[in-house]
Amino acid sequence: MKRTLLSVGVAVALGTPLSALAQAKPEVLVKQRQAAMTLQGKYFGPLAGMAQGKVPYNADVVKRNAGYLNALDKMPWDGFSPETKGEKSAALPAVWNEPDKFKQAADRLNSEVSKLVEVSQSGDEASVKAQIGAVGKSCGGCHETFREKR
Amino acid sequence: MKRTLLSVGVAVALGTPLSALAQAKPEVLVKQRQAAMTLQGKYFGPLAGMAQGKVPYNADVVKRNAGYLNALDKMPWDGFSPETKGEKSAALPAVWNEPDKFKQAADRLNSEVSKLVEVSQSGDEASVKAQIGAVGKSCGGCHETFREKR
Repeated sequence: MKRTLLSVGVAVALGTPLSALAQAKPEVLVKQRQAAMTLQGKYFGPLAGMAQGKVPYNADVVKRNAGYLNALDKMPWDGFSPETKGEKSAALPAVWNEPDKFKQAADRLNSEVSKLVEVSQSGDEASVKAQIGAVGKSCGGCHETFREKR
Repeated sequence: MKRTLLSVGVAVALGTPLSALAQAKPEVLVKQRQAAMTLQGKYFGPLAGMAQGKVPYNADVVKRNAGYLNALDKMPWDGFSPETKGEKSAALPAVWNEPDKFKQAADRLNSEVSKLVEVSQSGDEASVKAQIGAVGKSCGGCHETFREKR
Protein backbone atom coordinates (compact mmCIF):
# COMPACT_ATOMS: atom_id res chain seq x y z
CA MET A 1 0.00 0.00 0.00
CA LYS A 2 2.78 2.36 0.98
CA ARG A 3 4.59 1.55 -2.22
CA THR A 4 1.49 2.24 -4.31
CA LEU A 5 0.97 5.61 -2.70
CA LEU A 6 4.61 6.42 -3.19
CA SER A 7 4.46 5.50 -6.87
CA VAL A 8 1.49 7.71 -7.43
CA GLY A 9 3.11 10.57 -5.55
CA VAL A 10 6.30 10.31 -7.49
CA ALA A 11 4.68 9.94 -10.88
CA VAL A 12 2.54 12.98 -10.22
CA ALA A 13 5.46 14.86 -8.74
CA LEU A 14 7.88 14.34 -11.54
CA GLY A 15 5.49 13.99 -14.44
CA THR A 16 7.86 11.49 -15.95
CA PRO A 17 8.27 7.71 -15.76
CA LEU A 18 10.87 6.68 -13.22
CA SER A 19 12.62 4.51 -15.77
CA ALA A 20 13.68 7.68 -17.54
CA LEU A 21 15.53 8.87 -14.49
CA ALA A 22 18.24 6.25 -14.43
CA GLN A 23 20.04 7.82 -17.38
CA ALA A 24 19.10 11.45 -17.87
CA LYS A 25 18.92 12.47 -21.53
CA PRO A 26 21.34 15.12 -22.81
CA GLU A 27 18.60 17.73 -23.14
CA VAL A 28 17.51 17.06 -19.58
CA LEU A 29 21.08 17.46 -18.35
CA VAL A 30 21.29 20.81 -20.14
CA LYS A 31 17.96 21.92 -18.67
CA GLN A 32 19.11 20.96 -15.19
CA ARG A 33 22.46 22.72 -15.41
CA GLN A 34 20.77 25.84 -16.80
CA ALA A 35 18.29 25.68 -13.94
CA ALA A 36 21.19 25.76 -11.49
CA MET A 37 22.64 28.79 -13.28
CA THR A 38 19.25 30.54 -13.27
CA LEU A 39 18.93 30.09 -9.52
CA GLN A 40 22.49 31.17 -8.86
CA GLY A 41 21.60 34.35 -10.73
CA LYS A 42 18.45 34.75 -8.64
CA TYR A 43 20.29 34.51 -5.34
CA PHE A 44 23.56 36.17 -6.30
CA GLY A 45 22.00 39.16 -8.08
CA PRO A 46 20.76 40.96 -4.95
CA LEU A 47 24.09 40.36 -3.20
CA ALA A 48 25.98 41.91 -6.12
CA GLY A 49 23.57 44.83 -5.92
CA MET A 50 24.34 45.23 -2.21
CA ALA A 51 28.09 45.11 -2.79
CA GLN A 52 27.69 47.84 -5.38
CA GLY A 53 25.48 49.95 -3.14
CA LYS A 54 22.53 49.63 -5.52
CA VAL A 55 20.45 47.52 -3.13
CA PRO A 56 20.21 48.23 0.63
CA TYR A 57 22.52 45.96 2.60
CA ASN A 58 20.69 43.22 4.45
CA ALA A 59 22.85 40.81 6.44
CA ASP A 60 20.05 38.25 6.80
CA VAL A 61 19.48 38.09 3.06
CA VAL A 62 23.22 37.68 2.50
CA LYS A 63 23.36 34.80 4.99
CA ARG A 64 20.34 33.10 3.50
CA ASN A 65 21.44 33.53 -0.11
CA ALA A 66 25.00 32.48 0.65
CA GLY A 67 23.61 29.25 2.09
CA TYR A 68 21.47 28.68 -1.00
CA LEU A 69 24.42 29.43 -3.29
CA ASN A 70 26.54 26.98 -1.32
CA ALA A 71 24.15 24.24 -2.42
CA LEU A 72 23.43 25.56 -5.92
CA ASP A 73 27.10 25.89 -6.83
CA LYS A 74 27.50 22.11 -6.56
CA MET A 75 24.66 21.41 -8.99
CA PRO A 76 25.66 22.48 -12.51
CA TRP A 77 28.80 20.42 -13.10
CA ASP A 78 27.52 16.91 -13.75
CA GLY A 79 25.23 18.47 -16.33
CA PHE A 80 28.24 19.23 -18.54
CA SER A 81 28.80 15.58 -19.38
CA PRO A 82 30.29 14.80 -22.81
CA GLU A 83 27.00 13.59 -24.31
CA THR A 84 25.63 17.15 -23.99
CA LYS A 85 28.25 18.60 -26.36
CA GLY A 86 25.83 18.66 -29.29
CA GLU A 87 22.97 20.27 -27.40
CA LYS A 88 22.01 23.88 -28.04
CA SER A 89 23.38 25.98 -25.20
CA ALA A 90 25.79 28.82 -24.46
CA ALA A 91 28.50 26.41 -23.31
CA LEU A 92 31.68 26.80 -25.37
CA PRO A 93 33.73 23.80 -26.60
CA ALA A 94 36.38 24.84 -24.05
CA VAL A 95 34.21 23.15 -21.39
CA TRP A 96 35.16 19.78 -22.89
CA ASN A 97 38.49 20.75 -24.47
CA GLU A 98 39.94 22.18 -21.26
CA PRO A 99 38.34 20.06 -18.54
CA ASP A 100 41.05 20.77 -15.96
CA LYS A 101 40.70 24.50 -16.37
CA PHE A 102 36.90 24.17 -16.23
CA LYS A 103 37.16 22.13 -13.04
CA GLN A 104 39.47 24.75 -11.53
CA ALA A 105 36.96 27.49 -12.35
CA ALA A 106 34.16 25.49 -10.73
CA ASP A 107 36.33 24.79 -7.67
CA ARG A 108 37.12 28.47 -7.40
CA LEU A 109 33.43 29.34 -7.31
CA ASN A 110 32.79 26.67 -4.67
CA SER A 111 35.66 27.97 -2.59
CA GLU A 112 34.66 31.64 -2.84
CA VAL A 113 31.05 30.84 -1.96
CA SER A 114 32.19 28.77 1.04
CA LYS A 115 34.18 31.79 2.21
CA LEU A 116 31.11 33.97 1.72
CA VAL A 117 29.10 31.61 3.93
CA GLU A 118 31.74 31.97 6.64
CA VAL A 119 32.16 35.73 6.31
CA SER A 120 28.40 36.31 6.22
CA GLN A 121 28.18 34.83 9.73
CA SER A 122 30.46 37.54 11.14
CA GLY A 123 28.27 40.44 10.17
CA ASP A 124 31.22 42.62 9.12
CA GLU A 125 29.66 44.47 6.19
CA ALA A 126 32.90 45.51 4.48
CA SER A 127 34.30 41.97 4.53
CA VAL A 128 31.03 40.54 3.32
CA LYS A 129 30.88 42.98 0.43
CA ALA A 130 34.49 42.25 -0.52
CA GLN A 131 33.71 38.53 -0.52
CA ILE A 132 30.60 39.05 -2.64
CA GLY A 133 32.97 40.72 -5.10
CA ALA A 134 35.23 37.68 -5.05
CA VAL A 135 32.28 35.41 -5.80
CA GLY A 136 31.25 37.68 -8.67
CA LYS A 137 34.72 37.52 -10.12
CA SER A 138 34.70 33.73 -9.98
CA CYS A 139 31.38 33.68 -11.89
CA GLY A 140 32.70 36.13 -14.43
CA GLY A 141 36.07 34.43 -14.79
CA CYS A 142 34.43 31.14 -15.70
CA HIS A 143 31.86 32.68 -18.05
CA GLU A 144 34.59 34.63 -19.81
CA THR A 145 36.26 31.42 -21.01
CA PHE A 146 33.49 28.86 -21.03
CA ARG A 147 30.30 30.68 -22.00
CA GLU A 148 29.32 32.26 -25.28
CA LYS A 149 29.11 36.07 -25.17
CA ARG A 150 25.49 37.18 -25.30
CA MET B 1 39.32 49.46 -8.48
CA LYS B 2 37.63 46.71 -6.56
CA ARG B 3 34.26 48.11 -7.51
CA THR B 4 35.20 48.18 -11.18
CA LEU B 5 36.32 44.59 -11.10
CA LEU B 6 33.17 43.61 -9.27
CA SER B 7 30.98 45.35 -11.83
CA VAL B 8 32.69 43.56 -14.65
CA GLY B 9 32.47 40.24 -12.87
CA VAL B 10 28.81 40.62 -12.12
CA ALA B 11 27.84 41.87 -15.55
CA VAL B 12 29.63 38.95 -17.15
CA ALA B 13 28.22 36.56 -14.60
CA LEU B 14 24.62 37.50 -14.98
CA GLY B 15 24.56 38.67 -18.57
CA THR B 16 21.99 41.25 -17.55
CA PRO B 17 22.11 44.83 -16.28
CA LEU B 18 21.85 45.00 -12.52
CA SER B 19 19.08 47.56 -12.72
CA ALA B 20 16.86 44.78 -14.06
CA LEU B 21 17.32 42.76 -10.91
CA ALA B 22 15.55 45.04 -8.47
CA GLN B 23 12.14 44.02 -9.77
CA ALA B 24 12.20 40.67 -11.56
CA LYS B 25 9.87 40.48 -14.53
CA PRO B 26 6.99 37.98 -14.44
CA GLU B 27 8.61 35.74 -17.07
CA VAL B 28 11.82 35.71 -15.04
CA LEU B 29 9.92 34.75 -11.91
CA VAL B 30 8.31 31.86 -13.80
CA LYS B 31 11.67 30.74 -15.17
CA GLN B 32 13.17 30.84 -11.69
CA ARG B 33 10.38 28.90 -10.02
CA GLN B 34 10.47 26.31 -12.80
CA ALA B 35 14.23 26.04 -12.33
CA ALA B 36 13.65 25.20 -8.68
CA MET B 37 11.14 22.50 -9.68
CA THR B 38 13.54 21.09 -12.28
CA LEU B 39 16.28 20.74 -9.68
CA GLN B 40 13.94 19.26 -7.11
CA GLY B 41 13.14 16.64 -9.73
CA LYS B 42 16.84 16.05 -10.37
CA TYR B 43 17.64 15.42 -6.72
CA PHE B 44 14.43 13.74 -5.63
CA GLY B 45 14.19 11.35 -8.59
CA PRO B 46 17.03 9.05 -7.52
CA LEU B 47 15.71 8.96 -3.94
CA ALA B 48 12.27 7.94 -5.16
CA GLY B 49 13.97 5.24 -7.22
CA MET B 50 15.79 3.99 -4.11
CA ALA B 51 12.60 3.93 -2.07
CA GLN B 52 10.98 1.86 -4.78
CA GLY B 53 13.92 -0.49 -5.09
CA LYS B 54 14.61 0.58 -8.66
CA VAL B 55 17.91 2.27 -7.84
CA PRO B 56 20.50 0.79 -5.43
CA TYR B 57 20.24 2.37 -2.00
CA ASN B 58 23.07 4.79 -1.28
CA ALA B 59 22.95 6.52 2.10
CA ASP B 60 25.49 9.17 1.07
CA VAL B 61 23.47 10.19 -1.96
CA VAL B 62 20.34 10.40 0.17
CA LYS B 63 22.10 12.64 2.69
CA ARG B 64 23.53 14.87 0.00
CA ASN B 65 20.31 15.15 -1.99
CA ALA B 66 18.22 15.71 1.14
CA GLY B 67 20.48 18.65 1.95
CA TYR B 68 20.09 20.05 -1.55
CA LEU B 69 16.32 19.59 -1.43
CA ASN B 70 16.21 21.36 1.92
CA ALA B 71 17.52 24.47 0.15
CA LEU B 72 15.64 24.00 -3.14
CA ASP B 73 12.26 23.56 -1.46
CA LYS B 74 12.45 27.16 -0.19
CA MET B 75 13.05 28.60 -3.65
CA PRO B 76 9.90 28.25 -5.79
CA TRP B 77 7.35 30.11 -3.70
CA ASP B 78 8.16 33.79 -4.24
CA GLY B 79 8.05 32.99 -7.96
CA PHE B 80 4.27 32.50 -7.74
CA SER B 81 3.60 36.19 -7.17
CA PRO B 82 0.29 37.56 -8.51
CA GLU B 83 1.89 39.32 -11.50
CA THR B 84 2.83 35.92 -12.93
CA LYS B 85 -0.81 34.81 -13.24
CA GLY B 86 -0.93 35.57 -16.95
CA GLU B 87 2.33 33.82 -17.82
CA LYS B 88 2.33 30.52 -19.67
CA SER B 89 2.99 27.75 -17.18
CA ALA B 90 1.43 24.65 -15.69
CA ALA B 91 0.35 26.51 -12.57
CA LEU B 92 -3.41 26.33 -12.05
CA PRO B 93 -5.52 29.33 -10.93
CA ALA B 94 -5.91 27.55 -7.58
CA VAL B 95 -2.40 28.78 -6.71
CA TRP B 96 -3.80 32.31 -6.44
CA ASN B 97 -7.42 31.46 -5.60
CA GLU B 98 -6.51 29.23 -2.66
CA PRO B 99 -3.37 30.86 -1.28
CA ASP B 100 -3.74 29.38 2.22
CA LYS B 101 -4.06 25.86 0.87
CA PHE B 102 -1.09 26.47 -1.44
CA LYS B 103 0.98 27.74 1.46
CA GLN B 104 0.01 24.68 3.50
CA ALA B 105 1.12 22.41 0.69
CA ALA B 106 4.46 24.22 0.44
CA ASP B 107 4.91 24.06 4.22
CA ARG B 108 4.17 20.36 4.14
CA LEU B 109 6.93 19.79 1.59
CA ASN B 110 9.38 21.86 3.66
CA SER B 111 8.47 19.92 6.77
CA GLU B 112 8.75 16.48 5.14
CA VAL B 113 12.11 17.37 3.58
CA SER B 114 13.41 18.64 6.94
CA LYS B 115 12.43 15.28 8.43
CA LEU B 116 14.24 13.52 5.60
CA VAL B 117 17.39 15.50 6.37
CA GLU B 118 17.16 14.35 10.00
CA VAL B 119 16.31 10.75 9.22
CA SER B 120 19.02 10.50 6.56
CA GLN B 121 21.63 11.18 9.26
CA SER B 122 20.61 8.08 11.20
CA GLY B 123 21.37 5.63 8.45
CA ASP B 124 18.28 3.51 9.15
CA GLU B 125 17.39 2.46 5.61
CA ALA B 126 13.75 1.57 6.27
CA SER B 127 13.02 4.89 7.99
CA VAL B 128 14.79 6.81 5.28
CA LYS B 129 12.80 5.05 2.56
CA ALA B 130 9.54 5.69 4.41
CA GLN B 131 10.42 9.36 4.71
CA ILE B 132 11.32 9.55 1.01
CA GLY B 133 7.80 8.27 0.43
CA ALA B 134 6.38 11.04 2.61
CA VAL B 135 8.29 13.65 0.63
CA GLY B 136 6.99 12.14 -2.62
CA LYS B 137 3.44 12.34 -1.35
CA SER B 138 3.86 16.00 -0.46
CA CYS B 139 5.10 16.73 -4.01
CA GLY B 140 2.24 14.79 -5.51
CA GLY B 141 -0.38 16.24 -3.18
CA CYS B 142 0.51 19.77 -4.20
CA HIS B 143 0.76 19.00 -7.92
CA GLU B 144 -2.60 17.28 -7.81
CA THR B 145 -4.36 20.51 -6.89
CA PHE B 146 -2.09 23.23 -8.17
CA ARG B 147 -0.49 21.96 -11.36
CA GLU B 148 -2.04 21.19 -14.72
CA LYS B 149 -2.09 17.50 -15.61
CA ARG B 150 0.42 16.75 -18.32
